[in-house]
Parts: sequence; structure tokens; C-alpha cells
Amino acid sequence: MTADTPSTDPLVTDVAIVGAGPTALFAAFECSMLKLRCVLVDALAEIGGQCAALYPEKPIYDIPAHPAITGGDLIAALDQQIAPFAIPRLLGQRVETLTGHRGAFALGTSAGTQIRAAAVIIAAGAGAFGPNRPPLDGLDGFEASGAVQYYVRRRTDFAGRRIVIAGGGDSALDWALALKDIAAKIWLVHRRPRFRGAPETLSQIDAACARGEIEKVTPFQLARLHGTDGALSGVELATLEGETRVLDADCLLPFFGLSTDLGPIAGWGLDTHRNTIPVTPSTCESSTPGLFAIGDVATYPGKLKLILQGFSEGAMAAHAIHPIVHPDTALHFEYSTSKGVPGSDH
Amino acid sequence: MTADTPSTDPLVTDVAIVGAGPTALFAAFECSMLKLRCVLVDALAEIGGQCAALYPEKPIYDIPAHPAITGGDLIAALDQQIAPFAIPRLLGQRVETLTGHRGAFALGTSAGTQIRAAAVIIAAGAGAFGPNRPPLDGLDGFEASGAVQYYVRRRTDFAGRRIVIAGGGDSALDWALALKDIAAKIWLVHRRPRFRGAPETLSQIDAACARGEIEKVTPFQLARLHGTDGALSGVELATLEGETRVLDADCLLPFFGLSTDLGPIAGWGLDTHRNTIPVTPSTCESSTPGLFAIGDVATYPGKLKLILQGFSEGAMAAHAIHPIVHPDTALHFEYSTSKGVPGSDH
Repeated sequence: MTADTPSTDPLVTDVAIVGAGPTALFAAFECSMLKLRCVLVDALAEIGGQCAALYPEKPIYDIPAHPAITGGDLIAALDQQIAPFAIPRLLGQRVETLTGHRGAFALGTSAGTQIRAAAVIIAAGAGAFGPNRPPLDGLDGFEASGAVQYYVRRRTDFAGRRIVIAGGGDSALDWALALKDIAAKIWLVHRRPRFRGAPETLSQIDAACARGEIEKVTPFQLARLHGTDGALSGVELATLEGETRVLDADCLLPFFGLSTDLGPIAGWGLDTHRNTIPVTPSTCESSTPGLFAIGDVATYPGKLKLILQGFSEGAMAAHAIHPIVHPDTALHFEYSTSKGVPGSDH
Repeated sequence: MTADTPSTDPLVTDVAIVGAGPTALFAAFECSMLKLRCVLVDALAEIGGQCAALYPEKPIYDIPAHPAITGGDLIAALDQQIAPFAIPRLLGQRVETLTGHRGAFALGTSAGTQIRAAAVIIAAGAGAFGPNRPPLDGLDGFEASGAVQYYVRRRTDFAGRRIVIAGGGDSALDWALALKDIAAKIWLVHRRPRFRGAPETLSQIDAACARGEIEKVTPFQLARLHGTDGALSGVELATLEGETRVLDADCLLPFFGLSTDLGPIAGWGLDTHRNTIPVTPSTCESSTPGLFAIGDVATYPGKLKLILQGFSEGAMAAHAIHPIVHPDTALHFEYSTSKGVPGSDH
């Protein structure tokens, strides 16, 4: 047996949760309520997934009993909810390998951490998400200098800048509106003549264009970046007919959506379908026994991609995992919500 | 056609929601987000169902992103969340009749209100819930005078009283602890020698008994009420072996759990099973097309009775109802939660 012993002791737990977004955090809560030990593993350096990384300051309206809550506050509340359980968090490391079977899984991370777990919950959202990048020569250098950015983290970074915002959806429109008062110039570039957004947003864009605060440039696509050593001096556009135009911008914000990439998960031998993992509704178990998927990465007929559904799926997965970890113990679950109801035993 | 016209105009809507507890309120939110008109109908005079009626001041710990929230605050938050939609509420009236079919249901309430709806969501919880009452002669009169009560609405009502608390579960234990400092005397009566509660609660009870603040009386059952004209002078107990004892109490609080009674719903010709309505998971549609059930009244394999699951089921039902109301309009649903993600159209 000595030869099989790894050089560092593995982390032994009941449930390895892959991901640390809102769905993963609440699954950790549900596991803890059922006295299942768990660990959270995420490639990002912070908990919160997309909520924290992409829209920490955007209000969310469809979390039950939160009329409006920002992505950041949602994560903070979930963090507080699991705080009493002191759940280990392996952050800034990606789960690279998954082997084993129901009752005895082994996971290895990019940081070399080994995890042993009886069950696995994959709550990886859209996977190792990242922005869709335009196919432009020399893009890397302009990204490295910050001349091309895909997220607006601090609005004030864009004061006095001459900005090309590219994209036809809500994010392009919303950021054009949000930056127009501090930027020196905003061009809104879209490959189609019409933008797609909420009616109210489109009205505001038209009003801003009429006042000269935003200039629409359509139907144009990004063609080439001008400049040297990461300093952007112009963005060249082209139509499908070959007409070109150069905007003397010093900054480009492309909003072309997120790429979804399951990354290493795709190599674990699971059934996957279009970057999602099919699961059984009401348990969220995948076709690999003992391996569960919840949230945006999980799919089943009628699946709704709502944070709320991810919460609910986390509760179902935790209950389904309980007999794997404690095969001889029937689950006498005290619902927190029913604790106030007059005693059921008499 | 004139002969068929009712004497008062019916209330015409897309979705009739039977119930006004947390699950019903969030279903109303989800319907409204999908631009489905809805109405809430509940037998109670206030929204909130059991949360508001039975445990408004008890904290709940398993609502996502609410580390602790009382039943009352949960309902207030949900009320605020649906406030923008000005949803009609028919309170203090029970839905007595349900006829019709998918796309054209007719409901009649105990107040004589007629409702026409394309779809129905039953979110009736445990139905017209009420306490389990002990089988004692003359109980009605002592209930009417307030000498026998099943809920503690105002703790101060019990100052200086000599109270028999009956029951072996959490509610009996919790109220014994909550009232011991203001009551003149508390007997805790249970038909079994052992009580069932959280370990921490049981320790507190034992400590209070050691200090003489609470007296356990086991294994005794309620046998007879002494007193006249609603004034209680004593509670007579008996063991299975026939031993009796009279406690000179002026107040009895039985905590024997809730009775679940679907009431008129049981007569609507639906498939029901043990006071629940079987539904298809991921749509929550019952075997009657167009009629949905969510929350505690709904059942399917693996169903968890959590408020959270009721929220999730409300979202699923609303999405499943959309094509009934708008058969020609594909649902382009904007997730509130994804509004902050960089635009998906480019």
C-alpha cells in the first residue's frame, strides 16, 4: 500500500463542491444542515462566481424575499449564511482530474491538492467562463495594457477616454449610458442596424444620440486595431461590403457575451450535452452515480436557468447525497422552517 | 347567452392563485414577471399563510441569502417584492368551487366572488390548517373563553397564569421556556416519558426544571377539564394504567401539531393523495391540464417540503402556464439575474 500513498495527505470530506458561485455556496449550506462535511473548490480567487466577478453592483430582482439585491450583496449574504460551518475553501485552483466512483471519488486540483469525497456536486455555472474575444491581430498586447477591456470594474477608470463600445445587447447599451457622462467620446458599434434591449433603454440611447453624447456606428464590425506597444490610437471598422472607417479611440470595450467552457470537466468521462450535464430532476444526480450537477451547468427537461432553481437543486442534491455518506442512518431532517409550527409529536 | 350571464361581473384574470402564503406570493411575482395577470385568494384575512398566522416571530434559517429571517419579515419582503404589480388579493374568502378546463376555469369563493382564469395554481399549503384538538368534553366552551389556546399570539397575555403546556415536541418545549419567566406556574405534560427536541432545548428545559421554573408531568395524557362557564379550574390527567392527577391550572396550551385538511379542494375532482396533489416535476402541472400545484400541497417523487422548493416550483409553474395564456407568443424571458452579464448578442 505504501507505493500508492500520495506524498501529501489528501483532504478527506463527504462532498466535494466544484464551484463557489451562489448555487455552490447554498449547496454547501444544505450539506452542512444535513451534517455532511464539504469543501468548495473554485478557479477564481474569490467566492461568488459570475455574481462577484461580473456584476457585483448590478441589482438582481428575482431572488425570493429580496425585492432587489446586488450580485455582491447576494454573495455576502450567502457567505454569512454558511459562516457558522467553517467550510474549507480551495480558491484560485481548478479541479483538473476526477476519478473514482460513488462513495470514493478522488479529485486533483491545479494547485496539487488531492481531495477524497464520497460524492461530488458540480456547480460550475458556465464553466471556466470568459468573454468572447474579437478575432483581431495583436489583441493580446492591447488587452495587457488595458486598452481593450471586457468588464467595467471601476467606472472612473474611463473618465476622459475616447471609447468604442462594441455589441448590440443590453450590456453594450447599459455601459454606453453609464459611461457617457464621464467619457470624452462614445461610439456604439454594432454589426446590425438595430440594437436589442429593453424598450426603455433604447429610448434613452436614442435621446443620448440626439444630444450628441453617444454616436451609433452601424452596421459595422471591428476590423483592425491601430497603435503600438499596447497604446491604442484607432479602431478600424468595416462593413460586409468592404466600406471601412477608423475611429480615433483610445479604448475598446467589446460586449460580445460570455464563452462557456467546461474546461477539464469535459474530459472526466461524463455525459455532457452542449456544455451542460444532464441530470435526473429532483435528485440532480448525473448518469455517473454519486456525481451531481446543479445550477446553470445542469440540465433536464424544462430546466429554467435561474439562480433560484440552482438553490433548489442544491437542496435536492444534498438530500440525495445523505444516504451515500450515511447509508445506515435514516434522515430525520428538522426543517428550519417548520420549527415554529406547534409540535408534531404528542 | 343572456341566461348564462352571472348577476355580478366575474373577475377575469390569467392565473388564479389559491393561497397567499410565501409560495403563493412568489408565484404571483413570477407570473407578473412573465406578464401574466393573476389574483391571490386566501381564506385567511391576511397574506402570509402559516408564516404569518403561526410563527410570525420565529426565525427561519434555510431561506437562501437570508441567514435568519422571521416568518413575518419573510412575508413582508415578499409583499414588497410584488408591490409594483398591484396584484388583486381576495382575502377572508375560501375558494369553494372550481369548474372548467385548461384555458377556461371558473372559481367561486365563499364571499360569492366569481373568477375566470386560464390557469389555476393551488398553493394551499396544508390546506385550511388548524390545530389538532384534544378529545375532551366541553372543550368548545373553554376555547371560546380563551382558557384553552393553540397559538401564543401575545406572550404578555400569559403573565401570572398557571399554565398546562401539553405536547412532546419543539413547540411545547419552546413555549415552556418562553413563558416560564412571566407565568405563575408551568406544567409540561407529555404522554411519553421523553421529549423530542433539539439537544440544546432539552438541556435548557432540564435546567429550568432543576430551578423549579417548569414541572414535567409524564407519562400523562389529558383526561378532563374542570370548571364552569369557560373558567378553567383544573386539568385532569391520566396514565394508560388509570392513575389520575389534577393540576390546578387556569390555562391549557395543547401543542399537538396541525391538522391538514384540503377542505373544498378535495371535492374538485382532482387526483389527490394523502391531502396532497401529485404533479409533474419541472412544470408542477397536475393530472388536470391547466391546473398546477406548488408548495406543501404538491407532491412528486423526491419532493422536499421546504419553502425554497415552493419558490422554485412557483417559477416552474409560471413558465409552464405562459403558453396557455399566450399560445402564439414564444417566451423571450429576460432573466433579471443575467441582465448584468455582457450582452449575448453581437
